[in-house]
Amino acid sequence: MPLDTMASIINHQVLLASRPTGIPEAEHFEFAEEKVGTPGEGEFLIRNIFLSVDPAMKGWVNVAKNYSEPVAIGAVMRAIALGEVIESNHPKYAVGSHVVGTFGWQEYIVSNGDDVRLRVPDLLDLDVPLSAFLGVLGMNAITAYFGLLDIGEPKEGETVVVSTAAGAVGSAVGQIAKIKGCRTVGITGSDEKVGFCRDDFGYDVAINYKTADLEAALTEACPDGVNVYYDNTSGAISDAVYQKLAVGARCIVCGTASIEVWNPLPAGPRIERALLVNRARIQGLYIFDYLDRWEEALKELCQWFQEGKLNYREEFLDGLAQAPSSIARLYEGANKGKLLIRL
Amino acid sequence: MPLDTMASIINHQVLLASRPTGIPEAEHFEFAEEKVGTPGEGEFLIRNIFLSVDPAMKGWVNVAKNYSEPVAIGAVMRAIALGEVIESNHPKYAVGSHVVGTFGWQEYIVSNGDDVRLRVPDLLDLDVPLSAFLGVLGMNAITAYFGLLDIGEPKEGETVVVSTAAGAVGSAVGQIAKIKGCRTVGITGSDEKVGFCRDDFGYDVAINYKTADLEAALTEACPDGVNVYYDNTSGAISDAVYQKLAVGARCIVCGTASIEVWNPLPAGPRIERALLVNRARIQGLYIFDYLDRWEEALKELCQWFQEGKLNYREEFLDGLAQAPSSIARLYEGANKGKLLIRL
Repeated sequence: MPLDTMASIINHQVLLASRPTGIPEAEHFEFAEEKVGTPGEGEFLIRNIFLSVDPAMKGWVNVAKNYSEPVAIGAVMRAIALGEVIESNHPKYAVGSHVVGTFGWQEYIVSNGDDVRLRVPDLLDLDVPLSAFLGVLGMNAITAYFGLLDIGEPKEGETVVVSTAAGAVGSAVGQIAKIKGCRTVGITGSDEKVGFCRDDFGYDVAINYKTADLEAALTEACPDGVNVYYDNTSGAISDAVYQKLAVGARCIVCGTASIEVWNPLPAGPRIERALLVNRARIQGLYIFDYLDRWEEALKELCQWFQEGKLNYREEFLDGLAQAPSSIARLYEGANKGKLLIRL
Repeated sequence: MPLDTMASIINHQVLLASRPTGIPEAEHFEFAEEKVGTPGEGEFLIRNIFLSVDPAMKGWVNVAKNYSEPVAIGAVMRAIALGEVIESNHPKYAVGSHVVGTFGWQEYIVSNGDDVRLRVPDLLDLDVPLSAFLGVLGMNAITAYFGLLDIGEPKEGETVVVSTAAGAVGSAVGQIAKIKGCRTVGITGSDEKVGFCRDDFGYDVAINYKTADLEAALTEACPDGVNVYYDNTSGAISDAVYQKLAVGARCIVCGTASIEVWNPLPAGPRIERALLVNRARIQGLYIFDYLDRWEEALKELCQWFQEGKLNYREEFLDGLAQAPSSIARLYEGANKGKLLIRL
């Protein structure tokens, strides 16, 4: 489409309207529109195809200290998205190529490449839908990959426990742990998801924390203790797991989905004694620290995918109008797979 | 002294009489005596000279899960001690040599070498009292050494914060951190100890947590945040430090002196968010995991000692009668240096 045509096209957007103190709800956002911008020298125009809904987005709009600056009131909501380059004045981004990046909750964006995180492999000989590059072959799986392998250092035969085990990150953690020869125990929030864990993601044991006696279930599932804990929740689930650590355990804090508000700091059982007695460690993960190694992870994930070792589930919400309420849906645990907005 | 003479000598002992739920007090111990044993083939007789009083002894007599089996009621109280070999049927332990090990609160012990942890270097060309091998050249300093260097991985110019900064372990941590080119901040419990920290142990900043606004003092002392936290206390001190972590911080849990009872688990502010946002880590230290590398540490500590880079303070209690109340003295923070019982 020539530039003069594009310039008359409208870019629909979702802006942050007010700052939530906990989980962002539909009321915290508002719709806006603008004319699609024109890419200048060294820039290109992306048309978003899928917008990713991620737990991290709660942190992006709250005021508490986070990795990055909070989204400003009135700004386009920050979001990972997958789009197609439809106009380009940049030698590295050809028209027709697909890119993943922080393109925001909107239909179009002009980029100079700084906000691009992944390029969908051009020559990929896979029968895989593009949306997978936002999930099982995207940032969620890359997060699982480095958190588990780099911080968790799982060894064959060890027991790996995963919270939000059926989620986009958790399901990848469980499957990568199986690939590495570990015994996997998944903790999730419904009997249906227990089924996903067992049938789709190969967990050896899956526990519904809402109905099980979690402590008893963990004791049964982990007779030799927990060697690796990949944590996406914090809260009561983690409290139970930390009491089951094996000597030398490694715990990865990837997310804190069960804690609605961090200011003031919520209280929980102290973990220092469990760490001391088991000479265990807990470490926080920030996936952008691994940015220069993402291609390495993506390559191996694609390899496993081709070998049929990585399953995934997706749930699509159709249209930008669904975006404002989607984060709350994620925190309710109502989604049944990687949550995506399809434009 | 020939064996037949030794056999008529009395070994005075301190036994665990009852199990404390928190800090062991004098009332939890009782005195006993027995005839000194005769070393058999492959054994040797040690006469204890100094008994070490260590925070870990609280854990050794409590029932909560610990590194090792709790001391049995009626058994000699477990303790690190330094003694002289006075009779030997063991080729590796010559009469007149000095050894450090878990010899217990008693005057004599027959050993086969299994309970020996360190041999005082025979040819050590140092003007250093033997007692130092229970402190600044002993297990306390070795604990500081591996915790700080192996887990803490301090880099030149980084800020290292130490709790119980004037204690036997903490004072070694602070000095080793200075040797490695770090800025050191010590947290301690009296103005007198603040003086020890500054004058004897070279801390750049020392804070009396009992009188200071700890949060404000830490903010001032650590303008770029805390890169390494060597924790001997847990509790409110750690809560404050965890809110000041720099990106990539490493925390070592070496002790939990401020927590009297761990069962039921005491509550504190959750630390997952601080770990996540700063991609920081907390790891427990058990010094016996490093047993095969103790000689390596001792060699370097002796080198630094010879170069005048390691100061130390000691406080002596005279006679076995002082042992039963000595652990409580330590937990009150009433001691003014490495606490030792001199026999």
